Amino acid sequence: MRSLLDGKTLTLDIGRKALLAVDQTLLPGREEILVIEDEKAVFDAIKQLKVRGAPAIGVAAAAGYAVCASRFDVSSREEFDRRCGELSAYLASSRPTARNLFWALERMDAVLDSDKTSGVGKIKEKLLLEAKAVEEEDIARCRAIGLNGERFFGDGMRILTHCNAGRLAAVKYGTALAPVYVAAEKGRRVRVFCDETRPLLQGARLTAYELVSAGIDTTVLCDNMAASLMASGGIDACIVGADRIAANHDVANKIGTMPLAVCAKRFGVPFYVAAPSSTFDANCPTGADITIEQRDASEVTEMFFGNRTAPAGVKVFNPAFDVTPHELITAIITEEGVIDPSKT
Amino acid sequence: MRSLLDGKTLTLDIGRKALLAVDQTLLPGREEILVIEDEKAVFDAIKQLKVRGAPAIGVAAAAGYAVCASRFDVSSREEFDRRCGELSAYLASSRPTARNLFWALERMDAVLDSDKTSGVGKIKEKLLLEAKAVEEEDIARCRAIGLNGERFFGDGMRILTHCNAGRLAAVKYGTALAPVYVAAEKGRRVRVFCDETRPLLQGARLTAYELVSAGIDTTVLCDNMAASLMASGGIDACIVGADRIAANHDVANKIGTMPLAVCAKRFGVPFYVAAPSSTFDANCPTGADITIEQRDASEVTEMFFGNRTAPAGVKVFNPAFDVTPHELITAIITEEGVIDPSKT
Repeated sequence: MRSLLDGKTLTLDIGRKALLAVDQTLLPGREEILVIEDEKAVFDAIKQLKVRGAPAIGVAAAAGYAVCASRFDVSSREEFDRRCGELSAYLASSRPTARNLFWALERMDAVLDSDKTSGVGKIKEKLLLEAKAVEEEDIARCRAIGLNGERFFGDGMRILTHCNAGRLAAVKYGTALAPVYVAAEKGRRVRVFCDETRPLLQGARLTAYELVSAGIDTTVLCDNMAASLMASGGIDACIVGADRIAANHDVANKIGTMPLAVCAKRFGVPFYVAAPSSTFDANCPTGADITIEQRDASEVTEMFFGNRTAPAGVKVFNPAFDVTPHELITAIITEEGVIDPSKT
Repeated sequence: MRSLLDGKTLTLDIGRKALLAVDQTLLPGREEILVIEDEKAVFDAIKQLKVRGAPAIGVAAAAGYAVCASRFDVSSREEFDRRCGELSAYLASSRPTARNLFWALERMDAVLDSDKTSGVGKIKEKLLLEAKAVEEEDIARCRAIGLNGERFFGDGMRILTHCNAGRLAAVKYGTALAPVYVAAEKGRRVRVFCDETRPLLQGARLTAYELVSAGIDTTVLCDNMAASLMASGGIDACIVGADRIAANHDVANKIGTMPLAVCAKRFGVPFYVAAPSSTFDANCPTGADITIEQRDASEVTEMFFGNRTAPAGVKVFNPAFDVTPHELITAIITEEGVIDPSKT
């Protein structure tokens, strides 16, 4: 992956007028770069999860918008803006609940609104530059998380993580893994242990893949094996991402995060959360106010490949997230700095 | 299963001179009863894990021995004993490290040794009765565990278990699940939550299957979801089996048991271990003295069906067991009574 796109999951190639992206639906079995040049291809890449992860979706939408618009064969600004409006609405329908998708498309629409006088050629160029800015800001935000957190990850440390909040969910660095990548950049030899993360195996499929690609010493394990490693002194720190952080600093994240934090506390292992500051929800007082999505039973009973592993007639409990109480968290790392979760 | 073999996993049918057994390799997809009447079929059933679980293997070996011997078409005792010796050696080679297998075969051999004068007809009958006794003693031992433990499982209770130490590993009742079955027998409506138990999914495939078959309200969940249930007050008690219990009452059991006990302690949920007294190892001072077997990486990286889910080049941590410190265990239930783990 590093060699293919210079360590990026996706990138706008302005010269080629194309969005280049690693096809995540083929990982970890096959590494393939999508060359995306038309509306249908952008739509499908997002819809079919070839590009996934909130930050990555936003970047893909902005880049896709610019690439498609730059290829419109029209000369009137009015006609160009009309085509852009259709494009924006079409891309917005690819994943109707992804907030970053709408945010990115609105930002591209605003380029047109803020400059009604330039010709088509000039405005095409502005759109490409705006999309590139979205991409570069994402990289900078993730790198800032990394720079703020890297001090916790010294040479030789053995780090446990859960799910995927790495570069595959963003453009480069990722959120939870950014401090690890920055530590590695600085020449520290870290070892990362990835929980496989049942039921959808993002840890085994995605996190392990991106770490191995980045040349980091990587070990995968089942979720229920992490406590043994901690008990035997085999883990020096845990770091995970966050889907939502309540006002009291309770953290909702992928199911399986909280028991790790409980065990980390028992075995004296520091437990870090790293996330962009957009993850904080001031309107949510505590973790108890976060509604936990229940997902489809087949994710548990039919494993990942459609083979049934549980008997007919059995019920299934399949929550997508759990809530880690703030008192189990050592520090929350954002692009703005490091927060002590006990202080609100 | 209940309807097929009166709730037993396997049983000797003396009238039919056959060993009847649920084929566990087909679960949970298909319920099929094997009718085992010859040496090769007994050997294959054990070798190919159609019958599995230490207690069940012992019972199958004894019954298989009696069934095959009762079909020998010989009239001289000397010839009969010689054929039995060959049979015993052949069955002993089916799974060379299963202690219960050897124990059961030696017990059958002892029937011949203790009566050198009876004719073939009489000795065939004695062998069948001895095998039936092995089966009935196993049921009685498991039932005694159930009777000793059922007091902890009141009406309406929601019980979490891990892996399979149920009737599929024995003849009836099982070990860890025996108190649950006895509570259900007494008319209490219990609900059982089964961890799927990665990597080999014994919870989803076997425990969930046998509980559903027994008409018990059963829910399967990924191992990393149990803590959420406990945190929300959704679990009233945990019960698990044991592979080995040290002299200080630390318990080695299927990987994933210990983090459950850590979370149960945090959330105030009682944590019970149920096992036959043969599980206690007086020669093992503490859990730290128990060597933990590391199993093949492919169990983790290729899931259960041969599909690769982790990237090439990744390392794997795959311990078969973990050790639960005795201070996290509320009580240990055996066929002889209930032990307070804090007292040695």
